[in-house]
Amino acid sequence: MQRILGIDPGSRVTGYGIVDAGYGKVVFVSCGVIKTTPSFPLANRLNEIFEGINEVVQIHDPEVAAVEEVFISTNANSALKLGQARGAAVVAAMQNGLAVYDYSAKKVKRAVVGYGQAEKRQVQHMIRVLLGLSATPSNDAADALAVAICHANHQVSR
Amino acid sequence: MQRILGIDPGSRVTGYGIVDAGYGKVVFVSCGVIKTTPSFPLANRLNEIFEGINEVVQIHDPEVAAVEEVFISTNANSALKLGQARGAAVVAAMQNGLAVYDYSAKKVKRAVVGYGQAEKRQVQHMIRVLLGLSATPSNDAADALAVAICHANHQVSR
Repeated sequence: MQRILGIDPGSRVTGYGIVDAGYGKVVFVSCGVIKTTPSFPLANRLNEIFEGINEVVQIHDPEVAAVEEVFISTNANSALKLGQARGAAVVAAMQNGLAVYDYSAKKVKRAVVGYGQAEKRQVQHMIRVLLGLSATPSNDAADALAVAICHANHQVSR
Repeated sequence: MQRILGIDPGSRVTGYGIVDAGYGKVVFVSCGVIKTTPSFPLANRLNEIFEGINEVVQIHDPEVAAVEEVFISTNANSALKLGQARGAAVVAAMQNGLAVYDYSAKKVKRAVVGYGQAEKRQVQHMIRVLLGLSATPSNDAADALAVAICHANHQVSR
């Protein structure tokens, strides 16, 4: 079994999800969100993301991280903000010795829903079904679990 | 005197510059660039930026960091890459307990050349003059020194 940390980065909310994968199975371990303090300057919020991911890694000890390639909006300004959140999350994983893999949103959706244009609700629903959860995780936590599952599938097919 | 670390982030080359500022003077301490390995995946290059800044902080022990707000191109994809480099650099400074200040490229240019639309060569030239250097620093190192000087000026005027 391999423990996978999925990350859905965002400057306001960063989702994380952890699964154990192997022998054709994917087992839910944990999921949640890192919410940054809205009143803080961006530098401090980036540090909150770094420390949040750091804490998750310390607690659950995953072996690899899979990170969603953040949504490229037409707005370069928001791409820049998202990029910084992603950078903070990625170096937190790297600093803990994790290998980091990137997956496009399309690939992630295809892995859990079966097609790349799936809506957020469909992802949330399928995550609940696939992992046999008793409740539907929040948007960001579901996306993070989805990218972890996407990585699990890619490992199997290698 | 306050020791200021200036950072000009970039996914390929990140410039850094260190000055001591106070009593109406700015004194050159060091400058250089962190070049990331082109053949590496982005995650590893972000980690190289994090560790490069970390090393610079360990060696020179600055009290604050001033980071240039990266150029917002019309290309969201490159903004995303630049954003990630910036995120990695900012959390490296934050993790070392530095306060981090942001300055727009315009403000930085105004601080060293006197006007916001100055060209790179003018910045390099003025950095050499202002700090009494015997050689012209590279583009990225000069930009990093410029943002450090910009912070020094803002401190004085407060």
